[in-house]
Amino acid sequence: MNATILTVGTELLFGQIVNTNAAYLSSRLQLLGIDVLYHVTVGDNPHRLAAVLKRLLSETDLIVTTGGLGPTQDDLTKEIIAEVIGVGLEPDESVLSSIEGFFRKSGHEMTANNRKQALIPAGATVFRNEVGTAPGFAAERDGKTVIALPGPPREMKHLFEKEVSPYLQRRTNNVIRHRILRFYGIGESALESKLIPLIDGQTDPTVATYAKEGECSLRIASKRKTEEEALAAIDAMESRIKALVGEFLYSDEDKDLPIVAAEKLMARNLTLASAESCTGGLFADRLISVPGISKSFDRGYITYANGAKTQMLGVPEDVLASFGAVSEETAVAMAEGARKRAGTDVAISVTGVAGPDGGSDGKPVGLAWICVCDARGSRTKRIVTRDRGRNRNRYIFVLEMMNQLNRFLDREMM
Amino acid sequence: MNATILTVGTELLFGQIVNTNAAYLSSRLQLLGIDVLYHVTVGDNPHRLAAVLKRLLSETDLIVTTGGLGPTQDDLTKEIIAEVIGVGLEPDESVLSSIEGFFRKSGHEMTANNRKQALIPAGATVFRNEVGTAPGFAAERDGKTVIALPGPPREMKHLFEKEVSPYLQRRTNNVIRHRILRFYGIGESALESKLIPLIDGQTDPTVATYAKEGECSLRIASKRKTEEEALAAIDAMESRIKALVGEFLYSDEDKDLPIVAAEKLMARNLTLASAESCTGGLFADRLISVPGISKSFDRGYITYANGAKTQMLGVPEDVLASFGAVSEETAVAMAEGARKRAGTDVAISVTGVAGPDGGSDGKPVGLAWICVCDARGSRTKRIVTRDRGRNRNRYIFVLEMMNQLNRFLDREMM
Repeated sequence: MNATILTVGTELLFGQIVNTNAAYLSSRLQLLGIDVLYHVTVGDNPHRLAAVLKRLLSETDLIVTTGGLGPTQDDLTKEIIAEVIGVGLEPDESVLSSIEGFFRKSGHEMTANNRKQALIPAGATVFRNEVGTAPGFAAERDGKTVIALPGPPREMKHLFEKEVSPYLQRRTNNVIRHRILRFYGIGESALESKLIPLIDGQTDPTVATYAKEGECSLRIASKRKTEEEALAAIDAMESRIKALVGEFLYSDEDKDLPIVAAEKLMARNLTLASAESCTGGLFADRLISVPGISKSFDRGYITYANGAKTQMLGVPEDVLASFGAVSEETAVAMAEGARKRAGTDVAISVTGVAGPDGGSDGKPVGLAWICVCDARGSRTKRIVTRDRGRNRNRYIFVLEMMNQLNRFLDREMM
Repeated sequence: MNATILTVGTELLFGQIVNTNAAYLSSRLQLLGIDVLYHVTVGDNPHRLAAVLKRLLSETDLIVTTGGLGPTQDDLTKEIIAEVIGVGLEPDESVLSSIEGFFRKSGHEMTANNRKQALIPAGATVFRNEVGTAPGFAAERDGKTVIALPGPPREMKHLFEKEVSPYLQRRTNNVIRHRILRFYGIGESALESKLIPLIDGQTDPTVATYAKEGECSLRIASKRKTEEEALAAIDAMESRIKALVGEFLYSDEDKDLPIVAAEKLMARNLTLASAESCTGGLFADRLISVPGISKSFDRGYITYANGAKTQMLGVPEDVLASFGAVSEETAVAMAEGARKRAGTDVAISVTGVAGPDGGSDGKPVGLAWICVCDARGSRTKRIVTRDRGRNRNRYIFVLEMMNQLNRFLDREMM
């Protein structure tokens, strides 16, 4: 089966919003084994929309539209689909009562326009929208299918996961499951080449790698007759992958590094203090983004100036003078100072050269020293990024801090 | 003139990357007075690419392509364009020497494939690429124009601003200039309704508003015969806008709030310390993202736990006991403690309830107190966000901190 994603909305053609729906739907359809041949965007113009839809019906098996299902005059996607496939619009009673329920709950007044949203092309399969008012639907003609979804990404994704994905799987008589593994410390191409025996010639499960800033991930997907078979195939593949590159794996639940670190701290009732120089609070910010972290995160020191390192953390002036602010010795003194002053179980520090200025021969822009310590000892790490700008350097330093913290806690747990 | 944006790349159809190029080019073409009718994405498939290009040449005046100009086998955009408009490919000597220069500078080895990048459709206008190897070009047939640009956004934008925009302006005999004003403290719809007399019925300059998370911006654009006329028209419009909503304007150079705050501090040689609770370092992080800020930013205190507020900043225990951690009194004690301990000219503090837990009747999730102080006094601000989640609350708190800091510094400058 092949498909086109047709996004509708003048705001896309004005460049006011970026079309994230097309990327999301593409990756989801690919997982279902459906080839996406085109993305097309048209404005809220009935003639062009009708012409494009007619042509696409002759070119691809499946057309997934987003946008233009709202209550206003501009919203014409439903009307045009009905016209092109040659059916009328009919009110769907269950959608109407669900729209009424939505307005009761939200406390807003329901207008006559909103009733328009309960109209559905005759014979279409309705996808009820529990997180908004516009329902989605699937309409068919001559073996071709048009699926219409609302434009707001949250509603579109909710409907796709809950309704459209099962609808498409029923039509193919298959169950598709997938799992995302996250890796740190190995590049995408290195990961791919280590896994070549598992990727090449593999039809099910399939394994695909994706690069992300400073890390990478891998998707295992399996299409089988039952959920049990699909999950068993994924489990078996995950074991084979772990045997090859398990040392770099940090999550098999698609969790970010800060979430993994926060959960390890919280699960073990450990308290943490941070001492940051060049990252300037970004480490603490990312950790504190995890709800419930107040149980573990006690405080952070942002010791940007040298005087701050001495006064706030007790870094000896002669350490700064002998080794410099960006050195292993200063990183250790920062972490130990933070742990002692805060009275926490664990502390982590970073000191580096974020750039664009401040680099030197021995200490280039992109160099940082990281230290994690507890009462029993410390672990230090030197990192040099490929310098691609101040804020990317700072971002990479923080990823490495999260990684060092995770590895330190893993060691402690043994 | 109307246009289609044609993005080429299988990675887009797999959903591996989001198509930001289409949004960027749309907003830029709209500024030039060119109507964008369609976005189309095709994969690296020569037959489909040729068919789409032929059809689009019959439907729109201008086609702007991105992607498929690289050195590999997959990169076919240039070859297909030449085929469709019926010309051959010819090497461009100046492009060849610029590619050779790029490889010399980067230290990488130049392969035979890279020579392919110097081939250009016969008769095309070449756009030399100073930030990458693939040049862009404009080719014409029967009054229609095809502009081809490389896919990486940085290269594409550089070529568009430097070469394509002037090329298109020359063809329309107009000069287009625009200016972006940034506002904080007023919503998009309130901004729009205050400016209705300036927006409605205005043909040049045009004024358009855009919403951004927690703030909004406005674009003034003018299309005239000369740059002087366009800039004079924009200046006059900016004065009229300032007369109506000047109190909310914080930048007429499209600068972010943290950049404006950092520049004010640096220009006046003021030093700053921060004391953050719920925002957990995000304020310091955003300020430190500005290069050169080490001159002004001395240190930050992330006092997440109550004990940290007392030990690190000297917030009296009875203030915490009587008024609570989230209170005006605690915010003032935090800022004053930070300023005294750090010895800086200015200090800023925040204490609030980010959520999802921790809210109460008098202190709901989304409430924060902010304080800015110097030796002469302090300014406090209470803010309650529309609670849309922990990290959005934290983001909005930091925007308000930047706004309070800017207003405090403005007052000091009078």
